[in-house]
Amino acid sequence: MSDTPDNAVRDFVTDGREPFLDELREWLRIPSVSADPERADDVRRSARWLAEGLRRTGFPTVEVWETDGLPAVYAHWPAEDPDAPTVLVYGHHDVQPADRADGWHSEPFEPAERDGRLYARGAADDKGQVWFHTLGLRAHLAATGRRAPAVGLKLLIEGEEESGSPHFPALVAARAERLACDAVLVSDTGMWSRDTPTVCTGMRGLTDCQIDLRGPDQDIHSGSFGGAVPNPAQAAAELAAALHDDQRRVTVPGFYDGVVELTDRERELFAELPFDEDDWLRNAHSRATRGEEGYSTLERIWARPTAEVNGIGGGYQGPGGKTIVPSSATLKLSFRLVAGQDAEKVQQAVQEWVAARVPAGVRHELTFWGATRPCLTPLDHPALRSLSRAMERAFEQPVRYTREGGSGPAADLQDILDVPVLFLGISIPSDGWHAPNEKVELDLLLKGAETAAHFWQDLAASWRPDRL
Amino acid sequence: MSDTPDNAVRDFVTDGREPFLDELREWLRIPSVSADPERADDVRRSARWLAEGLRRTGFPTVEVWETDGLPAVYAHWPAEDPDAPTVLVYGHHDVQPADRADGWHSEPFEPAERDGRLYARGAADDKGQVWFHTLGLRAHLAATGRRAPAVGLKLLIEGEEESGSPHFPALVAARAERLACDAVLVSDTGMWSRDTPTVCTGMRGLTDCQIDLRGPDQDIHSGSFGGAVPNPAQAAAELAAALHDDQRRVTVPGFYDGVVELTDRERELFAELPFDEDDWLRNAHSRATRGEEGYSTLERIWARPTAEVNGIGGGYQGPGGKTIVPSSATLKLSFRLVAGQDAEKVQQAVQEWVAARVPAGVRHELTFWGATRPCLTPLDHPALRSLSRAMERAFEQPVRYTREGGSGPAADLQDILDVPVLFLGISIPSDGWHAPNEKVELDLLLKGAETAAHFWQDLAASWRPDRL
Repeated sequence: MSDTPDNAVRDFVTDGREPFLDELREWLRIPSVSADPERADDVRRSARWLAEGLRRTGFPTVEVWETDGLPAVYAHWPAEDPDAPTVLVYGHHDVQPADRADGWHSEPFEPAERDGRLYARGAADDKGQVWFHTLGLRAHLAATGRRAPAVGLKLLIEGEEESGSPHFPALVAARAERLACDAVLVSDTGMWSRDTPTVCTGMRGLTDCQIDLRGPDQDIHSGSFGGAVPNPAQAAAELAAALHDDQRRVTVPGFYDGVVELTDRERELFAELPFDEDDWLRNAHSRATRGEEGYSTLERIWARPTAEVNGIGGGYQGPGGKTIVPSSATLKLSFRLVAGQDAEKVQQAVQEWVAARVPAGVRHELTFWGATRPCLTPLDHPALRSLSRAMERAFEQPVRYTREGGSGPAADLQDILDVPVLFLGISIPSDGWHAPNEKVELDLLLKGAETAAHFWQDLAASWRPDRL
Repeated sequence: MSDTPDNAVRDFVTDGREPFLDELREWLRIPSVSADPERADDVRRSARWLAEGLRRTGFPTVEVWETDGLPAVYAHWPAEDPDAPTVLVYGHHDVQPADRADGWHSEPFEPAERDGRLYARGAADDKGQVWFHTLGLRAHLAATGRRAPAVGLKLLIEGEEESGSPHFPALVAARAERLACDAVLVSDTGMWSRDTPTVCTGMRGLTDCQIDLRGPDQDIHSGSFGGAVPNPAQAAAELAAALHDDQRRVTVPGFYDGVVELTDRERELFAELPFDEDDWLRNAHSRATRGEEGYSTLERIWARPTAEVNGIGGGYQGPGGKTIVPSSATLKLSFRLVAGQDAEKVQQAVQEWVAARVPAGVRHELTFWGATRPCLTPLDHPALRSLSRAMERAFEQPVRYTREGGSGPAADLQDILDVPVLFLGISIPSDGWHAPNEKVELDLLLKGAETAAHFWQDLAASWRPDRL
């Protein structure tokens, strides 16, 4: 039955698997860690690699866009039909830090295939999910006999997503004309599980910061001075501990201002998902749930804002003991934001909250790394329905709806370009984003390519400009 | 006037300065860091070096005493007069960790002389203050024309003081017969200042611990899981923050049980010392005082028990941000104890307090590194008066009395050998114990040798067994 479009797409994707994976492995070998200044050249190399790969795929326009930080890659392939809609695909080519010593079973930047999975930093977040679009697009062209895609396709693959996208809004704003589109498709999220394909309808925002605290100019003897001068490690601990109250709500004044609360219908839809707490805990590598009182685990991670201690360090951390009052301490915090919250206002509130709490004699410096806005897509949006149909054809079962607890610059695209944002992600919770042994399931990666191929065709066919 | 005993001692010490310092430098080059298992061989090398040095000094009996941990050095030189008292000198040959990168201006284990000071890890704490006894003893012999000291002299120089002396009480108990003496002289403390020589009358005790907290089995994505599982870095911070209440009193139940409170007279004596808070803060490299409400700075560091965060670490501490829930965190705490407190009971109370506070889903392990008891010597003790006279001859001015906020195993000697403990220390607050650029003032080091020389003679002359 390879003469039906679905099978034509699948056959093309299946046949193209090996060269597709060879190229992905090559890309994953580039350690494009945007948070580490020493990796800046690798992020640039990653951008050049991607640009070359998109040219090979057939995009007539491919450009590396420099920013004040690290570069993004832009590509454009217009539709043959001038009335066809244009979709901007968003992803990122930078990755989280990774060190073999953190518990990786193989080198994080040397992709390893085991049991149908590809292990590497960036395999799922986000290189794998960017790269499947090249295979999906070629499948779409092959299956439909087209020389150009049914919809106009733009790609914008940024290089600072894992650092909070500090230059992304400015880039999008400056290039808004060239980025003009009818919808954004973000491929930087996941789905419920292997067995329950889902479409994500929203992401949380993020702003994260580092607080440097300095007490004595050097470490001092805890017997001679301890108990009589302020201790910056204790000050860091007191800040971290004071972030939450007994109900585990964030205590920073004004933090919840404007939060769009969940409706009863949304809470029902969340509750209908086949959520197994034991499974979820296994994926979280954790032994207990803990979070804001009055909310389920899914509500906590999808629809509630949070404050998290990402790192804390101060004083002696070597073997044994060292009886000092430390000279300095550092606290790294991230705040997840939901629709209705204003990242700048949250930053200001955190600044004031910290300044009011640091004891006399301890100096502090607070640095925000960036801010990513939250976003939400209405469940009844026509393009979302088209995407759902495409995914159902690829996965051969009904799709459900989720949100994403993680953050991406989707909201900037939504706000600046004034278009709806859709999400196509095939990663599953066990993929280990930001963790050691990140991987992607290879069969799902190919389903992602199939979904993209179907989506371009479905969206072009069902396009009604007045309904978007 | 070199025919008076005082000048004879001084001339001998002055003439012996250079070879004395050459030997001290040689010893300081051995990085005998007892807290670091990788330095165990260096601690053993330090013990052998010291044993050889004591043999050269003339001690007829010198032995390296192995323990279940790191070795101590014992030496004995009996008095000619069988009725003379015997004094046991205590010090330690291990040192705190030190790393050039912590802010040292020269290599911590390559002694450097600048402006009349000798900079090196252990220069003041405690190798310099152990080694001046060899010069003082030889000056005593030369000035008095004796072939053996006026008092029986025993030395016990341990190798694990900076690690909390975990095997010291057992060692002393097992060798109590050979250590038998009439008084202990501890040379591991300091004095008020260059201009105000003082005798210390007590030390605080110490017990310190490490709390390891483990949450997720690996770092996990704070967007996917954060806000819904317990965070061990936050748990560590909450423990550290909960250690003190708003009055900065330690909150662990039972912590203050048995504490010997200061009398009004003692508070008056403390208040009479020429305490300059600005000077003290400069020595503390700090900008503000902060401690238990209702007590002065001197009272806080000399006579009040404390809890201090020596180190805290968990999660991402590299450049930039990393949006994770950390897998683990570690907290290093030390507790200073005062007379009346029981270290074992404090440890038990901390264990229970920690166990009750760690959230479900976080596993914890608490390791105490050891315990050192507090001690106090009565102000009117005859041997203390003899020591004061000796110090006044060396420094040519009256001495005052202090206590020591730091900790040493003096109390074990006091308890097990059932003898009074005296303190002879010439280090000053700016010497930077446990800190980068530790140093000792060379002229004060020689005054220490002079004091020891006078003390042996004075104590033998004023000895009344029934009064000790």
